[in-house]
Amino acid sequence: MRILGIDPGLRTLGWGVIESAGPRIGHVANGLCRSDGDDLAERLLSLFRQLGEVVARHRPDQAAVEQTFVNKDGAGTLKLGQARGIALLVPALAGLPVSEYAPNRVKKTVVGVGHADKAQILHMVRLQLPGCDPAGPDAADALAIAICHAHHGGALRPALRAVRA
Amino acid sequence: MRILGIDPGLRTLGWGVIESAGPRIGHVANGLCRSDGDDLAERLLSLFRQLGEVVARHRPDQAAVEQTFVNKDGAGTLKLGQARGIALLVPALAGLPVSEYAPNRVKKTVVGVGHADKAQILHMVRLQLPGCDPAGPDAADALAIAICHAHHGGALRPALRAVRA
Repeated sequence: MRILGIDPGLRTLGWGVIESAGPRIGHVANGLCRSDGDDLAERLLSLFRQLGEVVARHRPDQAAVEQTFVNKDGAGTLKLGQARGIALLVPALAGLPVSEYAPNRVKKTVVGVGHADKAQILHMVRLQLPGCDPAGPDAADALAIAICHAHHGGALRPALRAVRA
Repeated sequence: MRILGIDPGLRTLGWGVIESAGPRIGHVANGLCRSDGDDLAERLLSLFRQLGEVVARHRPDQAAVEQTFVNKDGAGTLKLGQARGIALLVPALAGLPVSEYAPNRVKKTVVGVGHADKAQILHMVRLQLPGCDPAGPDAADALAIAICHAHHGGALRPALRAVRA
């Protein structure tokens, strides 16, 4: 089973694809989608197209997106929400079931503690996916989200998918 | 020139299409997209599809989306942001220039005061678009956004569009 993990962001969106077979996982690819354009609509469109290309190229079976931590910065939350809309839409449009995981759950699964920093996540992602070189912290986070889904959601979702098919 | 106004929302998204020719405006159509689905990704996908049908059916030349008022309800801001991502993406995907207007500017343009309530907006939309019967308050708001764009943005945007073509 191939899993696409997505760490949404309006400026930079991280993605990572892993292969999961029972308890074994392996790295497939990872990268960053950087939005460009003169206005917000064009930036969202550029993220939509880039993420769509990732899905078309790597053909994942399932997707997992990080839940957003809502803070007191309303403008920041709104921006992230808009990018998150695209991150959820693109895999859904390709017919993939899309799961969501809270950041603490991702960290706890991959690092063992809920408040790991980015360096710890990068270290553990490299350990668990030998040969993988994340394109940046957002790509490492996306791989961590995919790993989290392989542990928690992978077993449940194929049944749901069969029901839908 | 045909203008699509959008009032974004995750549960209900209002839309309205008007025709603008110099100082004259006329009603074309309006309605509501109601999201459905078991999870957030499916609800966003349902909004994406419904709004895409509106664009395909009414073939607007330009789009205008209401800017979101950021408040202290982070979870609400995030939900709205996700729906707003779809509202901005769909017209951009169809090649339309997408403008954004603050709620107060829309109200000031359509009603004459920046703090008009929904009943005043509905009343003024009906006055300015004879024969129009908005499908609900969100559809009336969407028509108001389109009227605001006809007044403020319509004259500027074709030039921008020509540059892009």
